[in-house]
Amino acid sequence: MAEELRAAVGATQLLTDASVVASFESDWTGRFRGRARCVVRPADTAEVAAVMAAAARAKVPVCVQGGNTGLVGGSVPVGGAILLSTARLTALEPVEVVSGQVTVGAGVTLAALQRHVRAEGYDFGVDFAARDSATLGGLVATNAGGERVLRYGTTRAQVLGIEAVLADGSIISRLGGLPKDNTGYDTMSLLTGSEGTLGILTRLRLRLVPLLTERAVALVAVDDVAAALSLVRTVRNRLPSLEAAELFFADGLALVRARTGLSAPFAEAYPAYLVLECAGRADPTDELLEALAGSEAVRDATVAADPRGRHLLWSYREAHTESINSAGVPVKLDVAVPLTALAETVAALPATITAACPTARPILFGHLNEGNLHVNVLNATSEAEAVTDAVLRLIAAHGGSISAEHGVGRAKRAWLGLSRSPQEIAMMRAVKRGLDPEGLLNPGVLLDSA
Amino acid sequence: MAEELRAAVGATQLLTDASVVASFESDWTGRFRGRARCVVRPADTAEVAAVMAAAARAKVPVCVQGGNTGLVGGSVPVGGAILLSTARLTALEPVEVVSGQVTVGAGVTLAALQRHVRAEGYDFGVDFAARDSATLGGLVATNAGGERVLRYGTTRAQVLGIEAVLADGSIISRLGGLPKDNTGYDTMSLLTGSEGTLGILTRLRLRLVPLLTERAVALVAVDDVAAALSLVRTVRNRLPSLEAAELFFADGLALVRARTGLSAPFAEAYPAYLVLECAGRADPTDELLEALAGSEAVRDATVAADPRGRHLLWSYREAHTESINSAGVPVKLDVAVPLTALAETVAALPATITAACPTARPILFGHLNEGNLHVNVLNATSEAEAVTDAVLRLIAAHGGSISAEHGVGRAKRAWLGLSRSPQEIAMMRAVKRGLDPEGLLNPGVLLDSA
Repeated sequence: MAEELRAAVGATQLLTDASVVASFESDWTGRFRGRARCVVRPADTAEVAAVMAAAARAKVPVCVQGGNTGLVGGSVPVGGAILLSTARLTALEPVEVVSGQVTVGAGVTLAALQRHVRAEGYDFGVDFAARDSATLGGLVATNAGGERVLRYGTTRAQVLGIEAVLADGSIISRLGGLPKDNTGYDTMSLLTGSEGTLGILTRLRLRLVPLLTERAVALVAVDDVAAALSLVRTVRNRLPSLEAAELFFADGLALVRARTGLSAPFAEAYPAYLVLECAGRADPTDELLEALAGSEAVRDATVAADPRGRHLLWSYREAHTESINSAGVPVKLDVAVPLTALAETVAALPATITAACPTARPILFGHLNEGNLHVNVLNATSEAEAVTDAVLRLIAAHGGSISAEHGVGRAKRAWLGLSRSPQEIAMMRAVKRGLDPEGLLNPGVLLDSA
Repeated sequence: MAEELRAAVGATQLLTDASVVASFESDWTGRFRGRARCVVRPADTAEVAAVMAAAARAKVPVCVQGGNTGLVGGSVPVGGAILLSTARLTALEPVEVVSGQVTVGAGVTLAALQRHVRAEGYDFGVDFAARDSATLGGLVATNAGGERVLRYGTTRAQVLGIEAVLADGSIISRLGGLPKDNTGYDTMSLLTGSEGTLGILTRLRLRLVPLLTERAVALVAVDDVAAALSLVRTVRNRLPSLEAAELFFADGLALVRARTGLSAPFAEAYPAYLVLECAGRADPTDELLEALAGSEAVRDATVAADPRGRHLLWSYREAHTESINSAGVPVKLDVAVPLTALAETVAALPATITAACPTARPILFGHLNEGNLHVNVLNATSEAEAVTDAVLRLIAAHGGSISAEHGVGRAKRAWLGLSRSPQEIAMMRAVKRGLDPEGLLNPGVLLDSA
């Protein structure tokens, strides 16, 4: 085995020293730990295929690790697997200007992609805070979301092609970037979001979006979730330039102000707040103001178009994570419900959470247009399992998803049945069995090994 | 078997009279014919599941038929299959205004959907000429395209959820419409475009787009494909309101003018023409004019914002099909190539076609932004197979797709290997085996039965 792996990637890229391997065996939160027999760092798809073929012959599992910024333990090795790092799959091909597409290696970070394509007047449709470490392979494997899903969709909508190595070591390569190609099953969407369980992504063909530099941001006060939804419906339909609609509440704002020293945004306090951002080639300030004026849901609002002012308004939302973390170690959940159930869910969450843990202090914020709530619960670490269970059951009862953005990984596998029916899980198992009959790819992630 | 089917759908919805069954056994072109043992018309998902369960017990194949407007023989029964018609799956649920979504039965026609959602200020992102017959089930099963893919993507991008019956008779139902839901494999995208071979679609949850009534259309003359691409790149990046970019050539225009009596659009003749359409809430005429003024590729242009003027400009493109048909029975192919290969492909096609059939007269038109060419070949019916083979091989050599919009069906199955590698076809077979091990769903479509 070791000999074959050395032949596959070269002696210097097969890491077996225990202390080196250990640095790949836990996630960045330290919450998930596993055991790898070794780490391999292949340089290209052919080397990945050679590693997988050797693993398949020996029936040894393979786990893939990109930036290791995931939140559900999906990139931590198990069972003495070969840990395949994508760190050297960093090729950045030239931006194809005529089609607005680019092909990159799975180990390219989001930040490196952004630098690369912005130089050509393009941008990538997905962005989030972990951009300096998160890799495109990881974004695609987890179908990453973020704040711009409203305008551009999730990562899946950006994927035009994939090169990947399957469990038998075969290579599928589909990097032509054709936006219309009806020649069979959508194997690209199937691999996207499969969390390393169906194939090892090596190269990605990505759709780019125009780089939009003219921006306007509004911070808007509203009375409740229903008003926020009414506002978003109005502006979404009127403003093709709308890019983000972020929701937070009075308790989160208080935490943020205590932590950051930011002043109150409005003379009065309100129950709920929205950050809206528009972006275009022309200054979108006027159209944003006009749309806000057309909604009765707005109690107060402030708009900024200059970079400093925009940054300040975003701070009220973006400082949530840091402010919550500074107040304690939160139980963090990432859920979504249909918009028709959002107000009711937000209303029910506090009592549901305190019933599971009386000391708990829930703080909610999220991506309004997708009904995506980040549920952070302070003072509840001792009852983390009970709080998680209670929240996910409430979400499921409202027809929601137990994982809007983060994926299932190892962390949420036990609750998968709340979001997927037995028939759907059976369908997923049939796909997994068809493509990875020996269960070699990322075992224990997403589906249990049964 | 008959008894079980009668119990499943009711005696009146099991059709066995040979003359009645015959009306379901060929496609609208008369090119594809098959044999069905009977026709069933279930009223809901439970009845579909009962039919499929009975078929699975008896190991009898099931073929699904919607509007029967397909072009590749995908909805014609084979081998004495049960023909399952979706004609009664026509439920139209209320438009969910807050999310801009709707759930409809698979047998609802595109035109009925449009009427239903436009009454609420919404529209559907896909549209094409067969709207009065084509059903949503068919659109999703074939991942239908059309002229607005540039702005809204193919049908796949409109599908937020599916209810379907699998080959074992189990029902999967995923109609919550969550835009963010990372709980496992994207089984919805897998069913979309699977041409009836992985499941029977019964209900669909669809994303809607705002109804945009302010429109402007430009007819633009350019020197060649390279100029057309340069123009589209410019306007695509400047105009978020751009909805269509249709390409045709001097020979197609001559046919159209001969057939329709339309006058020459410009004082001079040019090699190639584009129809561009923009749509918004505000009149997009000025921004369209400005974008055209910013491109050096424009040789001449005329713009219309009034309905009559827009219709006239579109006529030059839309009358192509009728004008070609009136000149003879064309061999019709639907292909796509990467934009970087489009000019070369267009240049090479005539010689490739006349080498296969010296009398042939090719007429090209298509959806420029996706590199999607509709290749119509007159005077070539005697050499249809040779012309098809030559064109598809040329397309494959340029990294293209042998079926951009129409699907594979029975018509293009023999050429699938030109667009998909043996590894990809093996991957598709593994998925098919996993979900339909007995090969009961639409056998012979997409993949051969081996």
